[in-house]
Amino acid sequence: MMMPRVYIIGLGLGGWRGLPLEGLEAIRRVSRVLVDTYTNPISDEDLREISRLSGKKVSKLRRGDVEEGDAVFRAAEEGDIAILCGGDPLIATTHQQLVRELRRRGHEVRVIHGASVVTAAIGRSGLHVYKFGPPRTLMRPDVAPPGEVLRVLAENISRGLHTLVLLEYDAASGYVMGGREALEILYDSQRRMGARLPERGRPTLVMARLGYPDEEVVALRWGELPRGEVPGPAVIIVAGSLHFTEREYLRDIFGLDV
Amino acid sequence: MMMPRVYIIGLGLGGWRGLPLEGLEAIRRVSRVLVDTYTNPISDEDLREISRLSGKKVSKLRRGDVEEGDAVFRAAEEGDIAILCGGDPLIATTHQQLVRELRRRGHEVRVIHGASVVTAAIGRSGLHVYKFGPPRTLMRPDVAPPGEVLRVLAENISRGLHTLVLLEYDAASGYVMGGREALEILYDSQRRMGARLPERGRPTLVMARLGYPDEEVVALRWGELPRGEVPGPAVIIVAGSLHFTEREYLRDIFGLDV
Repeated sequence: MMMPRVYIIGLGLGGWRGLPLEGLEAIRRVSRVLVDTYTNPISDEDLREISRLSGKKVSKLRRGDVEEGDAVFRAAEEGDIAILCGGDPLIATTHQQLVRELRRRGHEVRVIHGASVVTAAIGRSGLHVYKFGPPRTLMRPDVAPPGEVLRVLAENISRGLHTLVLLEYDAASGYVMGGREALEILYDSQRRMGARLPERGRPTLVMARLGYPDEEVVALRWGELPRGEVPGPAVIIVAGSLHFTEREYLRDIFGLDV
Repeated sequence: MMMPRVYIIGLGLGGWRGLPLEGLEAIRRVSRVLVDTYTNPISDEDLREISRLSGKKVSKLRRGDVEEGDAVFRAAEEGDIAILCGGDPLIATTHQQLVRELRRRGHEVRVIHGASVVTAAIGRSGLHVYKFGPPRTLMRPDVAPPGEVLRVLAENISRGLHTLVLLEYDAASGYVMGGREALEILYDSQRRMGARLPERGRPTLVMARLGYPDEEVVALRWGELPRGEVPGPAVIIVAGSLHFTEREYLRDIFGLDV
Protein backbone atom coordinates (compact mmCIF):
# COMPACT_ATOMS: atom_id res chain seq x y z
CA MET A 1 0.00 0.00 0.00
CA MET A 2 1.18 3.49 -0.90
CA MET A 3 1.54 5.68 2.20
CA PRO A 4 -0.02 9.16 2.12
CA ARG A 5 2.21 12.05 1.09
CA VAL A 6 3.45 14.74 3.46
CA TYR A 7 4.12 18.30 2.31
CA ILE A 8 6.48 20.32 4.46
CA ILE A 9 5.85 23.90 3.48
CA GLY A 10 7.85 27.01 4.29
CA LEU A 11 5.61 29.94 5.23
CA GLY A 12 8.50 32.25 4.44
CA LEU A 13 8.52 35.63 6.18
CA GLY A 14 5.68 37.86 7.32
CA GLY A 15 3.17 35.21 8.39
CA TRP A 16 0.65 33.93 5.80
CA ARG A 17 1.86 36.58 3.29
CA GLY A 18 5.02 34.59 2.59
CA LEU A 19 3.27 31.36 1.57
CA PRO A 20 4.39 30.38 -1.96
CA LEU A 21 1.66 29.78 -4.57
CA GLU A 22 2.64 26.12 -4.74
CA GLY A 23 2.14 25.91 -0.98
CA LEU A 24 -1.34 27.37 -1.33
CA GLU A 25 -2.21 24.72 -3.92
CA ALA A 26 -0.93 22.01 -1.62
CA ILE A 27 -2.85 23.09 1.50
CA ARG A 28 -6.05 23.21 -0.57
CA ARG A 29 -5.48 19.63 -1.71
CA VAL A 30 -4.48 17.77 1.46
CA SER A 31 -6.80 16.31 4.05
CA ARG A 32 -5.23 18.04 7.06
CA VAL A 33 -3.18 21.20 7.67
CA LEU A 34 -0.83 21.31 10.67
CA VAL A 35 1.15 24.41 11.65
CA ASP A 36 4.40 24.34 13.59
CA THR A 37 4.18 27.09 16.21
CA TYR A 38 7.28 26.06 18.17
CA THR A 39 10.25 27.01 15.96
CA ASN A 40 8.77 30.33 14.81
CA PRO A 41 6.09 32.57 16.32
CA ILE A 42 2.98 32.46 14.13
CA SER A 43 0.07 34.66 15.18
CA ASP A 44 -3.54 33.58 15.62
CA GLU A 45 -4.40 36.03 12.86
CA ASP A 46 -2.06 34.13 10.54
CA LEU A 47 -3.64 30.83 11.54
CA ARG A 48 -7.11 32.20 10.78
CA GLU A 49 -5.95 33.46 7.39
CA ILE A 50 -4.33 30.10 6.55
CA SER A 51 -7.56 28.38 7.55
CA ARG A 52 -9.55 30.75 5.32
CA LEU A 53 -7.16 30.24 2.36
CA SER A 54 -7.11 26.46 2.67
CA GLY A 55 -10.76 26.06 3.58
CA LYS A 56 -9.61 23.73 6.37
CA LYS A 57 -9.28 23.65 10.10
CA VAL A 58 -5.66 24.30 10.99
CA SER A 59 -4.12 22.41 13.92
CA LYS A 60 -1.29 23.90 15.97
CA LEU A 61 1.71 21.70 16.57
CA ARG A 62 3.70 22.07 19.74
CA ARG A 63 7.30 20.91 20.12
CA GLY A 64 6.30 17.71 21.90
CA ASP A 65 4.03 16.74 19.01
CA VAL A 66 7.08 16.15 16.87
CA GLU A 67 9.89 15.41 19.24
CA GLU A 68 8.13 13.08 21.64
CA GLY A 69 4.51 12.50 20.69
CA ASP A 70 3.27 11.17 17.41
CA ALA A 71 0.36 13.48 16.51
CA VAL A 72 2.03 14.16 13.17
CA PHE A 73 2.61 10.51 12.37
CA ARG A 74 -0.96 9.54 13.24
CA ALA A 75 -2.35 12.34 11.05
CA ALA A 76 -0.05 11.32 8.20
CA GLU A 77 -1.34 7.77 8.23
CA GLU A 78 -4.89 8.89 7.50
CA GLY A 79 -4.27 10.88 4.31
CA ASP A 80 -2.06 13.50 2.66
CA ILE A 81 -1.16 16.27 5.09
CA ALA A 82 0.63 19.62 5.00
CA ILE A 83 2.92 20.81 7.77
CA LEU A 84 3.49 24.56 7.63
CA CYS A 85 6.58 26.07 9.24
CA GLY A 86 7.88 29.65 9.35
CA GLY A 87 10.79 30.55 7.05
CA ASP A 88 12.46 27.82 5.01
CA PRO A 89 11.56 24.74 7.06
CA LEU A 90 14.54 22.45 6.70
CA ILE A 91 16.99 25.05 8.00
CA ALA A 92 15.74 23.98 11.45
CA THR A 93 17.34 20.67 12.38
CA THR A 94 14.04 19.72 14.09
CA HIS A 95 12.39 19.54 10.68
CA GLN A 96 15.29 17.67 9.12
CA GLN A 97 14.76 14.96 11.72
CA LEU A 98 11.00 15.05 11.04
CA VAL A 99 11.68 14.35 7.34
CA ARG A 100 13.94 11.48 8.29
CA GLU A 101 11.29 9.92 10.54
CA LEU A 102 8.49 10.40 7.97
CA ARG A 103 10.60 8.79 5.25
CA ARG A 104 11.45 5.93 7.59
CA ARG A 105 7.71 5.36 8.03
CA GLY A 106 7.28 5.11 4.27
CA HIS A 107 5.84 8.54 3.45
CA GLU A 108 6.83 10.44 0.37
CA VAL A 109 7.90 13.86 1.65
CA ARG A 110 7.73 16.88 -0.61
CA VAL A 111 9.36 20.12 0.59
CA ILE A 112 8.03 23.45 -0.65
CA HIS A 113 10.64 26.04 0.24
CA GLY A 114 9.89 29.47 1.68
CA ALA A 115 11.95 32.61 2.22
CA SER A 116 14.34 32.37 5.16
CA VAL A 117 15.52 35.09 7.49
CA VAL A 118 19.04 33.81 6.76
CA THR A 119 19.12 35.02 3.15
CA ALA A 120 16.66 37.87 3.77
CA ALA A 121 18.91 39.42 6.42
CA ILE A 122 22.08 38.88 4.40
CA GLY A 123 20.47 40.42 1.33
CA ARG A 124 19.05 43.41 3.15
CA SER A 125 22.37 44.16 4.83
CA GLY A 126 24.06 44.93 1.50
CA LEU A 127 26.91 42.64 2.55
CA HIS A 128 28.05 39.89 0.20
CA VAL A 129 26.85 36.35 0.89
CA TYR A 130 30.34 35.08 -0.08
CA LYS A 131 31.81 36.77 2.96
CA PHE A 132 29.59 35.29 5.66
CA GLY A 133 31.17 32.86 8.09
CA PRO A 134 29.12 30.36 10.10
CA PRO A 135 26.05 31.85 11.86
CA ARG A 136 25.08 31.35 15.51
CA THR A 137 21.96 31.59 17.67
CA LEU A 138 22.15 33.67 20.85
CA MET A 139 20.21 32.28 23.82
CA ARG A 140 19.54 33.80 27.23
CA PRO A 141 22.68 33.43 29.40
CA ASP A 142 20.90 31.05 31.79
CA VAL A 143 19.98 28.77 28.84
CA ALA A 144 23.38 28.78 27.08
CA PRO A 145 26.49 30.89 27.71
CA PRO A 146 26.95 33.70 25.12
CA GLY A 147 30.70 33.13 25.02
CA GLU A 148 30.31 30.69 22.12
CA VAL A 149 28.62 33.39 19.99
CA LEU A 150 31.42 35.84 20.84
CA ARG A 151 34.03 33.23 19.96
CA VAL A 152 32.50 32.69 16.49
CA LEU A 153 32.13 36.46 15.99
CA ALA A 154 35.81 36.95 16.82
CA GLU A 155 36.93 34.11 14.58
CA ASN A 156 34.83 35.32 11.63
CA ILE A 157 36.08 38.91 12.06
CA SER A 158 39.70 37.83 12.24
CA ARG A 159 39.17 36.13 8.85
CA GLY A 160 37.44 39.20 7.41
CA LEU A 161 34.03 37.50 7.46
CA HIS A 162 30.60 38.82 8.44
CA THR A 163 28.41 37.07 11.04
CA LEU A 164 24.68 36.50 11.25
CA VAL A 165 23.41 36.04 14.81
CA LEU A 166 19.90 34.62 15.19
CA LEU A 167 18.09 35.39 18.46
CA GLU A 168 16.31 32.94 20.73
CA TYR A 169 12.62 32.20 20.40
CA ASP A 170 11.11 29.91 23.02
CA ALA A 171 7.55 28.91 22.22
CA ALA A 172 6.96 27.11 25.53
CA SER A 173 7.39 30.29 27.57
CA GLY A 174 6.41 32.73 24.80
CA TYR A 175 9.83 34.34 24.99
CA VAL A 176 11.19 36.27 21.96
CA MET A 177 14.58 37.94 22.41
CA GLY A 178 14.67 41.61 21.40
CA GLY A 179 17.53 43.25 19.50
CA ARG A 180 18.58 45.61 22.29
CA GLU A 181 18.42 42.85 24.86
CA ALA A 182 20.67 40.69 22.65
CA LEU A 183 23.31 43.39 22.35
CA GLU A 184 23.24 43.99 26.12
CA ILE A 185 23.85 40.28 26.68
CA LEU A 186 26.73 40.24 24.21
CA TYR A 187 28.38 43.46 25.50
CA ASP A 188 28.07 42.30 29.08
CA SER A 189 29.58 38.92 28.28
CA GLN A 190 32.40 40.54 26.31
CA ARG A 191 33.25 42.79 29.29
CA ARG A 192 33.38 39.82 31.65
CA MET A 193 35.55 37.84 29.25
CA GLY A 194 37.76 40.81 28.39
CA ALA A 195 37.41 39.75 24.74
CA ARG A 196 39.11 42.01 22.18
CA LEU A 197 36.79 41.19 19.25
CA PRO A 198 34.37 42.47 18.01
CA GLU A 199 36.07 45.82 18.62
CA ARG A 200 34.04 48.95 19.40
CA GLY A 201 32.78 50.85 16.34
CA ARG A 202 32.35 47.84 14.05
CA PRO A 203 29.23 48.26 11.79
CA THR A 204 26.33 46.31 13.30
CA LEU A 205 22.76 45.88 12.06
CA VAL A 206 19.73 44.87 14.09
CA MET A 207 16.95 43.56 11.82
CA ALA A 208 13.55 42.81 13.28
CA ARG A 209 10.40 41.26 11.88
CA LEU A 210 11.74 41.11 8.31
CA GLY A 211 8.90 40.57 5.85
CA TYR A 212 6.20 41.98 8.17
CA PRO A 213 4.66 45.40 7.45
CA ASP A 214 6.37 46.76 10.58
CA GLU A 215 9.85 45.41 9.80
CA GLU A 216 12.65 47.50 11.28
CA VAL A 217 16.38 47.82 10.65
CA VAL A 218 18.59 49.69 13.13
CA ALA A 219 22.15 50.44 12.03
CA LEU A 220 24.72 51.20 14.71
CA ARG A 221 28.27 50.51 15.87
CA TRP A 222 29.40 47.66 18.09
CA GLY A 223 29.27 49.07 21.63
CA GLU A 224 26.15 51.17 20.98
CA LEU A 225 22.56 50.28 21.89
CA PRO A 226 19.34 51.12 20.02
CA ARG A 227 17.35 53.83 21.84
CA GLY A 228 14.40 51.58 22.70
CA GLU A 229 13.86 47.84 22.50
CA VAL A 230 13.72 46.36 18.99
CA PRO A 231 11.03 43.71 19.39
CA GLY A 232 11.85 40.33 17.84
CA PRO A 233 11.92 38.01 16.09
CA ALA A 234 15.17 39.74 15.25
CA VAL A 235 18.67 38.99 14.01
CA ILE A 236 21.96 40.84 14.32
CA ILE A 237 24.65 41.14 11.67
CA VAL A 238 28.18 42.16 12.61
CA ALA A 239 30.35 43.17 9.66
CA GLY A 240 33.82 41.81 8.94
CA SER A 241 36.04 43.50 6.35
CA LEU A 242 34.18 45.69 3.87
CA HIS A 243 34.36 45.66 0.07
CA PHE A 244 33.83 49.14 -1.40
CA THR A 245 30.33 48.27 -2.67
CA GLU A 246 29.42 47.06 0.83
CA ARG A 247 30.74 50.31 2.24
CA GLU A 248 28.65 52.34 -0.23
CA TYR A 249 25.53 50.35 0.67
CA LEU A 250 25.96 50.79 4.44
CA ARG A 251 26.51 54.50 3.85
CA ASP A 252 23.65 55.16 1.41
CA ILE A 253 20.97 52.89 2.84
CA PHE A 254 21.69 52.98 6.57
CA GLY A 255 23.56 56.28 6.92
CA LEU A 256 26.55 54.59 8.56
CA ASP A 257 29.71 56.68 8.22
CA VAL A 258 32.04 53.86 7.08
CA MET B 1 6.25 65.03 -5.20
CA MET B 2 6.15 61.45 -3.93
CA MET B 3 8.02 59.11 -6.27
CA PRO B 4 6.32 55.83 -7.28
CA ARG B 5 7.11 52.76 -5.23
CA VAL B 6 9.20 49.84 -6.46
CA TYR B 7 8.59 46.27 -5.29
CA ILE B 8 11.51 43.89 -5.64
CA ILE B 9 9.99 40.46 -5.41
CA GLY B 10 11.67 37.10 -4.97
CA LEU B 11 10.14 34.41 -7.18
CA GLY B 12 11.65 31.81 -4.91
CA LEU B 13 12.31 28.39 -6.41
CA GLY B 14 10.50 26.48 -9.14
CA GLY B 15 9.50 29.39 -11.39
CA TRP B 16 6.09 31.04 -10.82
CA ARG B 17 5.21 28.38 -8.20
CA GLY B 18 7.51 30.00 -5.65
CA LEU B 19 5.90 33.45 -5.76
CA PRO B 20 4.76 34.42 -2.23
CA LEU B 21 1.11 35.46 -1.80
CA GLU B 22 2.20 39.00 -0.91
CA GLY B 23 4.13 39.11 -4.19
CA LEU B 24 1.00 38.08 -6.08
CA GLU B 25 -0.94 40.93 -4.46
CA ALA B 26 1.80 43.39 -5.40
CA ILE B 27 2.04 42.40 -9.07
CA ARG B 28 -1.74 42.76 -9.39
CA ARG B 29 -1.57 46.29 -7.99
CA VAL B 30 1.38 47.87 -9.81
CA SER B 31 1.31 49.49 -13.23
CA ARG B 32 4.16 47.46 -14.73
CA VAL B 33 5.75 44.06 -14.11
CA LEU B 34 9.40 43.53 -15.06
CA VAL B 35 11.19 40.19 -14.75
CA ASP B 36 14.93 39.76 -14.33
CA THR B 37 16.03 36.97 -16.65
CA TYR B 38 19.77 37.53 -16.27
CA THR B 39 20.64 36.33 -12.75
CA ASN B 40 18.37 33.25 -12.89
CA PRO B 41 16.92 31.29 -15.80
CA ILE B 42 13.16 31.87 -15.96
CA SER B 43 11.25 29.99 -18.64
CA ASP B 44 8.81 31.49 -21.14
CA GLU B 45 6.15 29.28 -19.58
CA ASP B 46 6.82 30.97 -16.23
CA LEU B 47 6.59 34.40 -17.86
CA ARG B 48 3.24 33.50 -19.42
CA GLU B 49 1.94 32.25 -16.06
CA ILE B 50 3.09 35.43 -14.29
CA SER B 51 1.38 37.48 -16.96
CA ARG B 52 -1.82 35.48 -16.49
CA LEU B 53 -1.69 35.80 -12.68
CA SER B 54 -1.01 39.53 -12.73
CA GLY B 55 -3.25 40.33 -15.67
CA LYS B 56 -0.38 42.39 -17.07
CA LYS B 57 2.15 42.28 -19.84
CA VAL B 58 5.45 41.15 -18.38
CA SER B 59 8.67 42.70 -19.70
CA LYS B 60 11.95 40.80 -19.65
CA LEU B 61 14.93 42.60 -18.20
CA ARG B 62 18.38 41.88 -19.53
CA ARG B 63 21.55 42.57 -17.61
CA GLY B 64 22.23 45.79 -19.51
CA ASP B 65 18.81 47.15 -18.54
CA VAL B 66 19.97 47.45 -14.98
CA GLU B 67 23.72 47.74 -15.13
CA GLU B 68 24.06 50.15 -18.02
CA GLY B 69 20.72 51.22 -19.43
CA ASP B 70 17.94 52.82 -17.51
CA ALA B 71 14.82 50.95 -18.66
CA VAL B 72 14.01 50.21 -15.02
CA PHE B 73 14.45 53.77 -13.87
CA ARG B 74 12.27 55.15 -16.69
CA ALA B 75 9.51 52.62 -15.91
CA ALA B 76 9.70 53.47 -12.21
CA GLU B 77 9.15 57.16 -12.87
CA GLU B 78 5.79 56.48 -14.49
CA GLY B 79 4.09 54.54 -11.67
CA ASP B 80 4.52 51.76 -9.13
CA ILE B 81 6.37 48.80 -10.63
CA ALA B 82 7.34 45.28 -9.61
CA ILE B 83 10.67 43.70 -10.46
CA LEU B 84 10.57 39.92 -10.16
CA CYS B 85 13.79 37.98 -9.62
CA GLY B 86 14.45 34.28 -9.07
CA GLY B 87 15.24 33.13 -5.52
CA ASP B 88 15.63 35.71 -2.77
CA PRO B 89 16.54 38.78 -4.81
CA LEU B 90 18.95 40.70 -2.62
CA ILE B 91 21.35 37.79 -2.28
CA ALA B 92 22.59 38.87 -5.73
CA THR B 93 24.80 41.93 -5.34
CA THR B 94 23.37 43.20 -8.66
CA HIS B 95 20.02 43.71 -6.96
CA GLN B 96 21.58 45.28 -3.87
CA GLN B 97 23.06 47.92 -6.16
CA LEU B 98 19.69 48.32 -7.90
CA VAL B 99 18.05 49.06 -4.54
CA ARG B 100 20.76 51.61 -3.80
CA GLU B 101 20.22 53.38 -7.12
CA LEU B 102 16.41 53.35 -6.82
CA ARG B 103 16.60 54.80 -3.31
CA ARG B 104 19.05 57.47 -4.53
CA ARG B 105 16.44 58.46 -7.12
CA GLY B 106 13.85 58.90 -4.39
CA HIS B 107 11.82 55.69 -4.76
CA GLU B 108 10.48 53.82 -1.80
CA VAL B 109 11.69 50.24 -2.29
CA ARG B 110 9.82 47.34 -0.74
CA VAL B 111 11.44 43.90 -0.82
CA ILE B 112 9.26 40.79 -0.79
CA HIS B 113 11.53 37.88 -0.02
CA GLY B 114 11.41 34.51 -1.77
CA ALA B 115 12.97 31.12 -1.06
CA SER B 116 16.65 30.96 -1.93
CA VAL B 117 18.67 28.02 -3.16
CA VAL B 118 21.15 28.89 -0.41
CA THR B 119 18.87 27.83 2.45
CA ALA B 120 16.97 25.27 0.35
CA ALA B 121 20.16 23.35 -0.45
CA ILE B 122 21.49 23.60 3.11
CA GLY B 123 18.16 22.40 4.51
CA ARG B 124 17.80 19.52 2.08
CA SER B 125 21.35 18.31 2.75
CA GLY B 126 20.54 17.50 6.37
CA LEU B 127 23.71 19.35 7.35
CA HIS B 128 23.50 22.04 10.02
CA VAL B 129 23.40 25.67 8.89
CA TYR B 130 25.70 26.54 11.84
CA LYS B 131 28.50 24.57 10.25
CA PHE B 132 28.57 26.19 6.80
CA GLY B 133 31.59 28.31 5.95
CA PRO B 134 31.51 30.97 3.21
CA PRO B 135 29.99 29.77 -0.11
CA ARG B 136 31.50 30.24 -3.57
CA THR B 137 30.35 30.29 -7.19
CA LEU B 138 32.16 28.06 -9.68
CA MET B 139 32.60 29.56 -13.16
CA ARG B 140 33.97 27.97 -16.34
CA PRO B 141 37.79 27.89 -16.14
CA ASP B 142 38.15 30.38 -19.02
CA VAL B 143 35.91 32.85 -17.15
CA ALA B 144 37.51 32.51 -13.69
CA PRO B 145 40.08 30.00 -12.37
CA PRO B 146 38.53 27.27 -10.16
CA GLY B 147 41.49 27.40 -7.77
CA GLU B 148 39.71 29.96 -5.60
CA VAL B 149 36.76 27.60 -5.06
CA LEU B 150 39.16 24.79 -4.13
CA ARG B 151 41.01 27.10 -1.75
CA VAL B 152 37.77 27.96 0.11
CA LEU B 153 36.70 24.29 0.12
CA ALA B 154 40.04 23.30 1.67
CA GLU B 155 39.91 26.09 4.24
CA ASN B 156 36.33 25.26 5.27
CA ILE B 157 37.13 21.55 5.53
CA SER B 158 40.22 22.17 7.64
CA ARG B 159 37.95 24.06 10.07
CA GLY B 160 35.33 21.28 10.03
CA LEU B 161 32.89 23.38 7.99
CA HIS B 162 30.62 22.45 5.07
CA THR B 163 30.71 24.35 1.76
CA LEU B 164 27.97 25.35 -0.66
CA VAL B 165 29.20 25.80 -4.24
CA LEU B 166 26.83 27.62 -6.60
CA LEU B 167 27.31 26.95 -10.32
CA GLU B 168 27.59 29.48 -13.12
CA TYR B 169 24.58 30.69 -15.07
CA ASP B 170 25.26 33.03 -17.97
CA ALA B 171 22.09 34.48 -19.44
CA ALA B 172 23.86 36.21 -22.36
CA SER B 173 25.05 32.92 -23.84
CA GLY B 174 22.30 30.73 -22.33
CA TYR B 175 24.93 28.70 -20.46
CA VAL B 176 23.93 26.75 -17.33
CA MET B 177 26.66 24.66 -15.71
CA GLY B 178 25.67 21.06 -14.99
CA GLY B 179 26.56 19.17 -11.82
CA ARG B 180 28.79 16.58 -13.49
CA GLU B 181 30.58 19.25 -15.52
CA ALA B 182 31.25 21.21 -12.31
CA LEU B 183 32.81 18.21 -10.57
CA GLU B 184 34.98 17.47 -13.63
CA ILE B 185 36.25 21.07 -13.56
CA LEU B 186 37.01 20.84 -9.85
CA TYR B 187 38.69 17.41 -9.98
CA ASP B 188 40.79 18.46 -12.97
CA SER B 189 41.86 21.65 -11.29
CA GLN B 190 42.69 19.79 -8.07
CA ARG B 191 44.89 17.33 -10.01
CA ARG B 192 46.80 20.17 -11.67
CA MET B 193 47.27 21.97 -8.35
CA GLY B 194 48.13 18.80 -6.47
CA ALA B 195 45.78 20.02 -3.74
CA ARG B 196 45.27 17.67 -0.79
CA LEU B 197 41.77 18.88 0.17
CA PRO B 198 38.98 17.97 -0.37
CA GLU B 199 40.27 14.41 0.05
CA ARG B 200 38.76 11.52 -1.91
CA GLY B 201 35.67 9.94 -0.36
CA ARG B 202 34.32 13.06 1.33
CA PRO B 203 30.46 13.11 1.21
CA THR B 204 29.32 15.33 -1.67
CA LEU B 205 25.82 16.24 -2.85
CA VAL B 206 24.80 17.54 -6.26
CA MET B 207 21.40 19.25 -6.10
CA ALA B 208 19.71 20.33 -9.28
CA ARG B 209 16.55 22.32 -10.02
CA LEU B 210 15.46 22.45 -6.36
CA GLY B 211 11.81 23.48 -6.12
CA TYR B 212 10.93 22.29 -9.65
CA PRO B 213 8.86 19.13 -10.14
CA ASP B 214 11.95 17.43 -11.66
CA GLU B 215 14.37 18.37 -8.87
CA GLU B 216 17.22 15.90 -8.43
CA VAL B 217 19.72 15.14 -5.68
CA VAL B 218 22.73 12.93 -6.38
CA ALA B 219 24.77 11.80 -3.38
CA LEU B 220 28.33 10.62 -3.97
CA ARG B 221 31.90 10.82 -2.71
CA TRP B 222 34.48 13.42 -3.65
CA GLY B 223 36.36 11.90 -6.59
CA GLU B 224 33.27 10.22 -8.06
CA LEU B 225 31.11 11.49 -10.94
CA PRO B 226 27.35 11.12 -11.44
CA ARG B 227 26.55 8.60 -14.20
CA GLY B 228 25.04 11.15 -16.59
CA GLU B 229 24.96 14.94 -16.62
CA VAL B 230 22.88 16.57 -13.86
CA PRO B 231 21.33 19.50 -15.71
CA GLY B 232 21.46 22.83 -13.85
CA PRO B 233 20.73 25.18 -12.31
CA ALA B 234 22.54 23.11 -9.73
CA VAL B 235 24.64 23.48 -6.60
CA ILE B 236 27.18 21.24 -4.91
CA ILE B 237 27.65 20.73 -1.19
CA VAL B 238 30.86 19.26 0.16
CA ALA B 239 30.64 18.11 3.79
CA GLY B 240 33.10 19.07 6.52
CA SER B 241 33.06 17.22 9.84
CA LEU B 242 29.84 15.40 10.60
CA HIS B 243 27.68 15.56 13.73
CA PHE B 244 25.95 12.24 14.44
CA THR B 245 22.53 13.59 13.37
CA GLU B 246 24.08 14.74 10.07
CA ARG B 247 25.59 11.31 9.63
CA GLU B 248 22.19 9.66 10.24
CA TYR B 249 20.53 11.96 7.70
CA LEU B 250 23.11 11.30 4.97
CA ARG B 251 22.73 7.58 5.61
CA ASP B 252 18.92 7.39 5.79
CA ILE B 253 17.98 9.91 3.11
CA PHE B 254 20.79 9.55 0.58
CA GLY B 255 22.08 6.06 1.33
CA LEU B 256 25.63 7.30 1.89
CA ASP B 257 27.64 4.87 3.99
CA VAL B 258 29.12 7.42 6.44
